[in-house]
Amino acid sequence: MREMTNIALIGFGAVGKSLAETIRDKHDWLKERYGLDAKLVAISGRSKGSIYDSEGLDLEELLEVFNETGNLESYPKGIKGLSSMEIITETNAQIIAEATITNIKTGEPTLSYVKAALSKGKHVVTSNKGPAALAYNELQKLALENGVQFRIESTVLSGTPAINFSTESLAGHKITSVKGIINGTTNYILAEMEQGRPYEDALVEAQRLGYAEADPTADVDGWDAVAKIMILGNVVLGGDLRSSDVERTGITGITMEDVEAAKAEEKRIKLIAEAYMEDGVVKAKVAPTWLPLSDPLANVNGTLNAITVMTDGLEEVTVIGGGAGGLGTAHGLLSDIIAIHRH
Amino acid sequence: MREMTNIALIGFGAVGKSLAETIRDKHDWLKERYGLDAKLVAISGRSKGSIYDSEGLDLEELLEVFNETGNLESYPKGIKGLSSMEIITETNAQIIAEATITNIKTGEPTLSYVKAALSKGKHVVTSNKGPAALAYNELQKLALENGVQFRIESTVLSGTPAINFSTESLAGHKITSVKGIINGTTNYILAEMEQGRPYEDALVEAQRLGYAEADPTADVDGWDAVAKIMILGNVVLGGDLRSSDVERTGITGITMEDVEAAKAEEKRIKLIAEAYMEDGVVKAKVAPTWLPLSDPLANVNGTLNAITVMTDGLEEVTVIGGGAGGLGTAHGLLSDIIAIHRH
Repeated sequence: MREMTNIALIGFGAVGKSLAETIRDKHDWLKERYGLDAKLVAISGRSKGSIYDSEGLDLEELLEVFNETGNLESYPKGIKGLSSMEIITETNAQIIAEATITNIKTGEPTLSYVKAALSKGKHVVTSNKGPAALAYNELQKLALENGVQFRIESTVLSGTPAINFSTESLAGHKITSVKGIINGTTNYILAEMEQGRPYEDALVEAQRLGYAEADPTADVDGWDAVAKIMILGNVVLGGDLRSSDVERTGITGITMEDVEAAKAEEKRIKLIAEAYMEDGVVKAKVAPTWLPLSDPLANVNGTLNAITVMTDGLEEVTVIGGGAGGLGTAHGLLSDIIAIHRH
Repeated sequence: MREMTNIALIGFGAVGKSLAETIRDKHDWLKERYGLDAKLVAISGRSKGSIYDSEGLDLEELLEVFNETGNLESYPKGIKGLSSMEIITETNAQIIAEATITNIKTGEPTLSYVKAALSKGKHVVTSNKGPAALAYNELQKLALENGVQFRIESTVLSGTPAINFSTESLAGHKITSVKGIINGTTNYILAEMEQGRPYEDALVEAQRLGYAEADPTADVDGWDAVAKIMILGNVVLGGDLRSSDVERTGITGITMEDVEAAKAEEKRIKLIAEAYMEDGVVKAKVAPTWLPLSDPLANVNGTLNAITVMTDGLEEVTVIGGGAGGLGTAHGLLSDIIAIHRH
């Protein structure tokens, strides 16, 4: 495994750029530590052009030039103007690192990118929730048929190990449920409400801090949590969930009276997403839940995320970590690249 | 990877027996899920005899007979009377699963068993803290030279993923420190003190419940935590710690006044073990520490254990899980066996 590993990066927002910077900064260490000689050969960004050099891009130079001009095509060498699909199918990349923005309704255009890459015998690592939530089983089958891997660690908990933790660190355990706090925005709002700030004020503050979008529906109505719990249910429990299968209640109905009533019982309201087995079928739900303070999930505050995995060998195991940010998500992609290199 | 995997089990206490039961119960599922056809070919217990069948033991029958007689040699087939060392060196086992009692002073006899196994080209998985704490780097080198693996997931946190979590799930992160609550007995005593029960009473209760030994020194003076933080420091941070390098303060000096004073500051006293880098060298300490309630470790109560890993990619990541019990520890051994099978 001493040969080069050629990577193409699709998407050059916060996550994609952070991955390029990480490969620039850690290249020598990755080679020494894991024998991984990671070469970024191509990058495309939706509004930032694209660049390809089969010998590998000079990331030092590329990032410097990009920081000046905002366009990948200012890089003085290489081939410019290839589309994302051309980069996926026509270059010498062995691994496609996909970090575009999630479209949770259709998964496109990423879903087509992933299918094309796997069909061409290229490994895919992605932080995009769309393909993972909408078509995980189909894509996993396609990967298997083509002798490659489709890995999605960074689609939930933004790089905090959740999927590889459940499937690899917990190998040998039969997992019966996964539940957690997997949306940082709602967790922040609920914690603010507990400090005495009404819902509307807490939402405005979350928007001001950049945690919530101008249209907060995806977070506060639970849609983001639905996408993530579908992924966890399908990957970790082997389910076949569609979004219409997931019972969903958001946090917009939570009042200060609810929060105070929970507090009086030494409980805390959290938006809990859960996937579980019922009569041999994987089911899932997202709902505000009153947790006793002794529950590890009750103490996950701020924008932290967490999952608790129930297993037959260890009862409950909980992982708590950051739930947002380009650097963490990029490291989730990197951990998947290393896993591909190792196997 | 469809051939059989022959395993010999050394040590038949709670952990060893639990591993045998787990392989009996999960054999078909492990084969279907991981392609692992696990065959236990030999078992030896210090006072329970030994049994070897190169074709594999019938675990259903063996465990039934053992539960009746308390002796492995009541099994009607196979070769009896081999020593543990003979089982390690003279049988067709490919993996030695080692689950004997820890001797933290010399590591023996386990240290000799592990060396013999690795030198013979056999993989070793162990729950015994002795060899891992005293000679990890030497044994890892020996394993590498012989093209086999030496895996020790279950030596800390009793099977809750800590080592594989740090080295594999967090691959690509540079880890700068690992700290945690890695001794359940002292955590139980401190939690009881917080409920108003003085140290001496809490210790007696811990002994009554079987959490503390008649001689509680190894727990309350911090020696058990020292052994485990040496393992984490050496494996996760790549250190070369000796026990004399570890600063150690136990919990015997903690008074009810300390506990109350911490509470008044919205803090909680926990016995924290930490390994960290200082001037390029790995150091470690074990000491009672006042944690703010917002720290995930502050909320780890009962006999739960937890570690917090500091990384350059994700800041803090915390794993919380059971810290005792044969079944969890056996699953730690099993996860290592599956990892060997996968690579």
